[in-house]
Amino acid sequence: MREPRIVTTRALGPDFAVGPAERYFEDYVPGALYEYGERTVSEREIIEFATAFDPQDFHVDAAGAAAGPFGGLIASGLHSAALAMRLLTDHYISWVASLGSPGLDALTWPAPLRPGDRVRLRAQVLEARGSASKPERGIVRTRVQLLTDRDAIVVETTMANLLARRPSSP
Amino acid sequence: MREPRIVTTRALGPDFAVGPAERYFEDYVPGALYEYGERTVSEREIIEFATAFDPQDFHVDAAGAAAGPFGGLIASGLHSAALAMRLLTDHYISWVASLGSPGLDALTWPAPLRPGDRVRLRAQVLEARGSASKPERGIVRTRVQLLTDRDAIVVETTMANLLARRPSSP
Repeated sequence: MREPRIVTTRALGPDFAVGPAERYFEDYVPGALYEYGERTVSEREIIEFATAFDPQDFHVDAAGAAAGPFGGLIASGLHSAALAMRLLTDHYISWVASLGSPGLDALTWPAPLRPGDRVRLRAQVLEARGSASKPERGIVRTRVQLLTDRDAIVVETTMANLLARRPSSP
Repeated sequence: MREPRIVTTRALGPDFAVGPAERYFEDYVPGALYEYGERTVSEREIIEFATAFDPQDFHVDAAGAAAGPFGGLIASGLHSAALAMRLLTDHYISWVASLGSPGLDALTWPAPLRPGDRVRLRAQVLEARGSASKPERGIVRTRVQLLTDRDAIVVETTMANLLARRPSSP
């Protein structure tokens, strides 16, 4: 299990009863809604990510982007999704029971993420279903949103996560 | 328009009639299928991406990952998606007509991406539809796969892209 790395973000409302290092499939209860944050996204970060993975003008060239379709620099959609993922792994996904993810449902970027935006994560448990074939695990479906402090939604998706059940007491 | 940055990858079969710096909405013809690659993914890259965005043990801790659910280190799914995006922006998405993307349909990771895997991109135009409200642009839907050299599919999604039409000759 990794050491906690959380220095800049925190729960912004009700949190799970147990921390991510003690959390198992059983702790994800449909309907529960959590928010974590915040994190300010810099122009440097946006350009650095996009230079590596998505070097379109409106992601890497601040001057050119001003005359482009978004009137300024915006983050790559995959960068926005990766920022949501970091908040999920710091706060929401168990550090001890995670067995990976088969994928996401539709991933959309309703609003662009711009330099200086402060973002927070909203995660709501939609479904928690035990596995029929593997009784020691279950699948959790979560509605994930990344929002700015003006409540613009910059990432929206539904994520599936496989999680181990809590081991029985001896 | 940015300078070409493509040094390690190339078309692996038929390519568009015009390069990405001359490409517009009209060049995306439903049914057309392109492949670009290849790129070998290192353990260092996998750990670096995941340390920033998805620091789960099986993405960042090679020794711990050996005993984990995947029997070794695997790339964050968002890293795999970002690698597909880099191949798309180098080769497939127009460098002059791109107006961004509203999102992806389901994004899945059928197989894990492991250190040393060589990946290539497969992109097939599914649909190219002019905009009713904005006649100077259209939307292109593309089936995107990232494959290893053993043809394991490590990313699968359908992407939507907004693209400007070719300006009429004067």
